Amino acid sequence: MSPAPSVSHSITVRLEFEARSAAVSSITTTIEQRGGEVTALDVSASGPERMRADVTILTGGNEHAMEIVEALRGIEGVDLGKVSDRTFLAHLGGKLTVESKMPIRHRDDLSMVYTPGVARVVKAIAENPDDARRLTIKRNTVAVVSDGSAILGLGDLGPLAAMPVMEGKAALFKRFAGIDAFPICLDAHSVDDIVAHVKAIAPVFAGINLEDISAPRCFEIEDRLRRELDIPVFHDDQHGTAIVVVAALRNALRVVGKDIASVRIVLSGAGAAGTAILRLLRAAGARDIVVTDIHGIVHEGRRELDGRLPWIAEVTNPREITGTLRDAVAGADVFIGVSAGNILRGEDVATMAQDPIVFAMANPTPEIDPAEAAEHAAVVATGRSDFANQINNVLAFPGVFRGLLDAHASNVDDRMLLAAAEALAAVVTDEELNPTYIVPSVFNEKVTTAVASAVEQVAREEAGTVDTITGAMRAVYADEIVMPRD
Amino acid sequence: MSPAPSVSHSITVRLEFEARSAAVSSITTTIEQRGGEVTALDVSASGPERMRADVTILTGGNEHAMEIVEALRGIEGVDLGKVSDRTFLAHLGGKLTVESKMPIRHRDDLSMVYTPGVARVVKAIAENPDDARRLTIKRNTVAVVSDGSAILGLGDLGPLAAMPVMEGKAALFKRFAGIDAFPICLDAHSVDDIVAHVKAIAPVFAGINLEDISAPRCFEIEDRLRRELDIPVFHDDQHGTAIVVVAALRNALRVVGKDIASVRIVLSGAGAAGTAILRLLRAAGARDIVVTDIHGIVHEGRRELDGRLPWIAEVTNPREITGTLRDAVAGADVFIGVSAGNILRGEDVATMAQDPIVFAMANPTPEIDPAEAAEHAAVVATGRSDFANQINNVLAFPGVFRGLLDAHASNVDDRMLLAAAEALAAVVTDEELNPTYIVPSVFNEKVTTAVASAVEQVAREEAGTVDTITGAMRAVYADEIVMPRD
Repeated sequence: MSPAPSVSHSITVRLEFEARSAAVSSITTTIEQRGGEVTALDVSASGPERMRADVTILTGGNEHAMEIVEALRGIEGVDLGKVSDRTFLAHLGGKLTVESKMPIRHRDDLSMVYTPGVARVVKAIAENPDDARRLTIKRNTVAVVSDGSAILGLGDLGPLAAMPVMEGKAALFKRFAGIDAFPICLDAHSVDDIVAHVKAIAPVFAGINLEDISAPRCFEIEDRLRRELDIPVFHDDQHGTAIVVVAALRNALRVVGKDIASVRIVLSGAGAAGTAILRLLRAAGARDIVVTDIHGIVHEGRRELDGRLPWIAEVTNPREITGTLRDAVAGADVFIGVSAGNILRGEDVATMAQDPIVFAMANPTPEIDPAEAAEHAAVVATGRSDFANQINNVLAFPGVFRGLLDAHASNVDDRMLLAAAEALAAVVTDEELNPTYIVPSVFNEKVTTAVASAVEQVAREEAGTVDTITGAMRAVYADEIVMPRD
Repeated sequence: MSPAPSVSHSITVRLEFEARSAAVSSITTTIEQRGGEVTALDVSASGPERMRADVTILTGGNEHAMEIVEALRGIEGVDLGKVSDRTFLAHLGGKLTVESKMPIRHRDDLSMVYTPGVARVVKAIAENPDDARRLTIKRNTVAVVSDGSAILGLGDLGPLAAMPVMEGKAALFKRFAGIDAFPICLDAHSVDDIVAHVKAIAPVFAGINLEDISAPRCFEIEDRLRRELDIPVFHDDQHGTAIVVVAALRNALRVVGKDIASVRIVLSGAGAAGTAILRLLRAAGARDIVVTDIHGIVHEGRRELDGRLPWIAEVTNPREITGTLRDAVAGADVFIGVSAGNILRGEDVATMAQDPIVFAMANPTPEIDPAEAAEHAAVVATGRSDFANQINNVLAFPGVFRGLLDAHASNVDDRMLLAAAEALAAVVTDEELNPTYIVPSVFNEKVTTAVASAVEQVAREEAGTVDTITGAMRAVYADEIVMPRD
């Protein structure tokens, strides 16, 4: 059976056929018999004998789409024209555009936007580099940086193939936080090279969003850039995920009436996301965390602990248990998976403590089928958009960067991430909260504002520039005297 | 005396004063007495006794503006509020914005723009990297790259101070050629580093515009990038200037009825622009060119020829003359200056051949005062916007890149530059041509199209992909089957 028809596999087929209702119904029947779903039939030309229509069809995937197209080709009296795929159509020519904020209509506009007027702005910035945040795009601009080494779940496909993801990310930055983001897809491989290139382009940006860079290189790249740059550096695969997981966990614990300081948590996966989740869970007050990887439970007695595993062994597993994931899960209150598909079964969840919480976030196949988990668990969440409680980074990164940029932050730290998680959790009111609604919708307008305010507040506190009216930066700018300083 | 009031030094002053016409006239009189020019008086609040207005004033520069502001402050009964500078106001928050082409309204949009739909586009590009030009912003995107080492005529002010210029350039790319351009201001110094960084970011772009990089580093950077990248690399300070100079010279020669192959040309300046102009003049058929620099005429017998000077000495100066700029100019038909201000006088122009042509393009002060040159020359041009015949790069670079991008060009060469120059010259019809109109206005809509078509045609010829319908790329894309290839 094909997967359920969805918009991300929808196609538009141009057909020419006899101008009789029997022809139309034979087309729609054929599509429906093959499991497709007709969502639109737009007639683009019509005559006394024949007509032409663009038929849009939801399908379950490429093969399914091809099957339907072949079936249509087989109908007597129907001619098949252009076949387009809506997702590919949406990507034609790319997803971003760079626009001038000022119209350039005549010589006077040109003289202000470019020479000779621009020379005075150049001199002002040369004399006072901080003015770059007043007088250039720097203030509101973020680089979305990837080397394409770990694109989605697809592996190392290189910088060109990373483009659609980074463009999409930039589009989300604008949509959800009003931030101007630009894709920087690097043809570079070593940690040294990537660090050097990002440092070189940093003058243009007020923040760096690292994306889809493979572990363990991502840790060193982020650590070094954070030390060596004066703008915040945020690896979304790590910290974006961690923020949303901690927010979701906070609300799941509200649902079952447990306290984060006293629950037993099993975290499956010690990669980029797992490590960041662990850090933030600890910052949030979790005390009993057991981490498992492909070799089972991480503990100090285990052989061949490398990378971040010695640190993980040191700060986790207070009861010093050993064994497999299954051993870890028995009696636990919370399972958090950022590892691999189908490694847990319903009978394992049945061995957990009362009212267990299961976050199965491996993509595209979760650690356990969410329906199976739900038979035993009080709260279930996944990374998938077709199930309740989607753990989606879009809930975090736009607001985090909005807050960092508004505070003119020079760095980002765990206190800010925790504040973001708490603010995100608090968007779900007591009245709204239930086992299938522990995180707000990404289209909930309160999300970005709540996260941004929380991050900005902490960033200003740490910089010693607390402003009682947070978010008032734009007003301040609009009202000051804007003359060159000489 | 202050320089003439201009919009690039215009200010807006907020004033509160008595609600009587005498108060208004004392304000405008004060401004006019000090040489300012009132262009707008917008009342923003009014009451029975007092009113508030924003007065916009053209001034001759910062000092002049301050003088006027102080005079206003001295008027009895007038309170001075915010003072803003229109050029600085235009730069507040930067001049560019990055927008999503697709609205992101609901879950379905998100599924196409980002995960999970985007994964299929990623896979398509990984399988066929050429698809990046179909499915990402690469096709229409240019990097405007600078290290800030030679910003306008202001020197090495670094990457942050370069931002307003590169943003302005990007705004012009969009305005005049519909190209998405993004500023890449590099915190890097050595040739090796700059080459490495530009190569690393190249996957995102279909072309590289180098800008305001100091000579002689700019030559090696461009040479190496052209060899090592598969997209065109164009240093606008060199080639943009050269194209417009050759186009202007072609039309100036039309005015005086001389042939480029037989005129004597003196070129003052052997830097980035001078070297590029020399190359293109030779490609255009000029045979008698004498180059001068700060040490006088370049000839093979001169001592200490370094950098590009040995090459210049070899390919120029067929009559093997020696001496100063003044010696070179005597009897010459054409003077082209890209060097320094006030190095030539009217009496020198008087020694030139009949109907001499003088292009004095040093900025901000030309090699000779254009009014003084006009007493003896048949045609005079400068780089300034306040004189006829402005040699302005905006006439060249948008069309050049439009043509290169539409041809999917992998390089740019002198044939394309020459085609651009000829197309630009041809925009001025025989009916329009006169000594004060040898180049079209930058706002002439035919300019970009003419230059782009010429460049695209040559690029396609050289790539062996001549299309009889040039510029038909978008139509082709819109009509093909856009399904993933597997």
